[in-house]
Amino acid sequence: MTRSQPHGPALNGQASAAASPLGLHRVIEPAGVLPQAAWRLEAKPQLWPDEVRVAVERLNLDAASFRQLHESKGGDPDRIRAAVLEIVRTRGKMQNPVTGSGGMLTGTVDEVGKDSPLGLAEGDKIATLVSLSLTPLVITDGLARWDGLSEQVPCEGHAILFGRSIAARLPDDLPAELALSVMDVCGAPALTHRVVTSSPAAHPVVAIIGAAGKSGSLSAAAARQAGAGRVIGVVPHEAEASILREARAADGQHGLVDEVVIADARNPVGVSGAIQSAGGPADVTVVCVDVPGCEGGAILSTAQGGTVIFFSMATSFSAAALGAEGVAADVTMLVGNGYVPGHAQLAIDLIRTEPGVRGLFQRRIDEHSAQPDQADRGRE
Amino acid sequence: MTRSQPHGPALNGQASAAASPLGLHRVIEPAGVLPQAAWRLEAKPQLWPDEVRVAVERLNLDAASFRQLHESKGGDPDRIRAAVLEIVRTRGKMQNPVTGSGGMLTGTVDEVGKDSPLGLAEGDKIATLVSLSLTPLVITDGLARWDGLSEQVPCEGHAILFGRSIAARLPDDLPAELALSVMDVCGAPALTHRVVTSSPAAHPVVAIIGAAGKSGSLSAAAARQAGAGRVIGVVPHEAEASILREARAADGQHGLVDEVVIADARNPVGVSGAIQSAGGPADVTVVCVDVPGCEGGAILSTAQGGTVIFFSMATSFSAAALGAEGVAADVTMLVGNGYVPGHAQLAIDLIRTEPGVRGLFQRRIDEHSAQPDQADRGRE
Repeated sequence: MTRSQPHGPALNGQASAAASPLGLHRVIEPAGVLPQAAWRLEAKPQLWPDEVRVAVERLNLDAASFRQLHESKGGDPDRIRAAVLEIVRTRGKMQNPVTGSGGMLTGTVDEVGKDSPLGLAEGDKIATLVSLSLTPLVITDGLARWDGLSEQVPCEGHAILFGRSIAARLPDDLPAELALSVMDVCGAPALTHRVVTSSPAAHPVVAIIGAAGKSGSLSAAAARQAGAGRVIGVVPHEAEASILREARAADGQHGLVDEVVIADARNPVGVSGAIQSAGGPADVTVVCVDVPGCEGGAILSTAQGGTVIFFSMATSFSAAALGAEGVAADVTMLVGNGYVPGHAQLAIDLIRTEPGVRGLFQRRIDEHSAQPDQADRGRE
Repeated sequence: MTRSQPHGPALNGQASAAASPLGLHRVIEPAGVLPQAAWRLEAKPQLWPDEVRVAVERLNLDAASFRQLHESKGGDPDRIRAAVLEIVRTRGKMQNPVTGSGGMLTGTVDEVGKDSPLGLAEGDKIATLVSLSLTPLVITDGLARWDGLSEQVPCEGHAILFGRSIAARLPDDLPAELALSVMDVCGAPALTHRVVTSSPAAHPVVAIIGAAGKSGSLSAAAARQAGAGRVIGVVPHEAEASILREARAADGQHGLVDEVVIADARNPVGVSGAIQSAGGPADVTVVCVDVPGCEGGAILSTAQGGTVIFFSMATSFSAAALGAEGVAADVTMLVGNGYVPGHAQLAIDLIRTEPGVRGLFQRRIDEHSAQPDQADRGRE
């Protein structure tokens, strides 16, 4: 396909010549909002100069979105397929109107605008790391190859990446499903690495709540790599504990974590006591379980002057703010930003070098094939 | 009153001899939770060794709690009084069961346990800086002096401070209502000061969203004191803008902020554009307005590598996390912890030295006497 310029004025009142790196020029309604908040996007294939078009191969619907579709359509594959097609046709993107969530996609770069800053080339196999909820999308095959029974949606069509969209090349040496699964949570190890590296403690104690999960195991490995003196892994029960104990670090000598403790993360006294007994309090506590009510435990488990990183989307802002104040905890509390420069590469490198983490991921993927894993789902 | 030791075993299974600095020994039900989460606390006046008893003079109910009581009781003062008395009698603390919130109190230190770490002495006039929702309380005067018509509740009785409770001496040189109003939001300037001081930028640009409010004006002054190169104040309309323009910095030469911009904080494109025009993007953005939907605007207004501090209790954790990810914003996002060591003193010192901030506070207090100000309420 040849490079083309868009025709006619942009539809939301932005200057027609200039594309916004945020995609504002693709917002049809309501005018002036960001693409994620928009009801409808312009999804035509012609590119603005800083955009990239991707030939889509697969959508990975967000678990919450698929669950909602599955339930509201009584599990009927034909009705689920029709619902997804109708959403994409009317909205110009795959954003579930009930859950607000999207997912991610994989495909091949089809055309690169002359001003695109993303560093992609035609023919690159990529995954998008921004949500489908803000990605212009057209489906052209009627989803004929999708069985309607899982979040994995084989698909033909095209999607548009903006100047500030994030995409990562799929590595040649890893199965696509594993790579996607890693990229879905790659913000957690990257931010953990940054926080541990900049900790004022010489060899910080790091507690990972939900250490046997995907984001948790990657974060544990990242913490070690960043210089953690001791990594404490918190899991909810013996089954997870025994899986985590078996996972080895890259050197084969140490465990992926130094101490495995079993505690209910929703019980502040219990979890903080368990972490204390395992060498805590933590200088850095990382919350990786999507269960409500973990704020108080994470705060109490953290040393004065330490940092809590909340990756769980079940985190309550007010519970965190009031919880710290209520116990006079001088802890820095971070909203786990899913974007850190270089995050996909860091996570993929960890999977390559850490057989223990890779084993945990493979186990999750195998379990997931059998039964959806709602305890460690992606965040979109 | 003489010093006394508690009698009998503690009621939640903790060792009877040792008090928990978190107050776990005062939790009656359910067992094992923190005092804030408890349904009922033991509020008897006898002290454990690290506790302090306060003779209560006034409760300041949280605005959300008072509003709920007022509405559910049809504005009838007798029924409102009865409801507060019933809550305190059954729960051993003033925690509204619907809103979950409490408030704060003022009083005089009556007895100090021999192991109390709080540094208080008998006779000190204090305000509590932890929520009433976790403070053991007994009311002894039937609230006879309260008109039931405002959050200010004159009151006799006693309250208990734990080892980790936070209390501040009321300054002699400021009216009590002003001092309380300052202490209610004192976490914001303290954390702003810390973040601006440690910013990697030499003279960071700081944007305060809601700069004419209580926490906003204090944070603006704190940012200046911490070395901000430029302080941009964002307000929603011309009335607030003109108030803010009149407010001078301590030196009398500069304004409290360098630039006043009018923008709707819920419009990401609008607010970030306005801040850009005023010298942004910001290295540090401070969100001080209790309005939902400000996450995207704050993120877009902040430079890559910068920091957003969310003080608004209307902040949505997931909107912040997904919002940053969706625009590839490498920004550090902080949950505004209401506790920073020395926070009350820092805020009181700002009020003493910054006539512009004091003027804004006095104006809010005067307005509040006429009409409740729900846009800048405290957080408990």
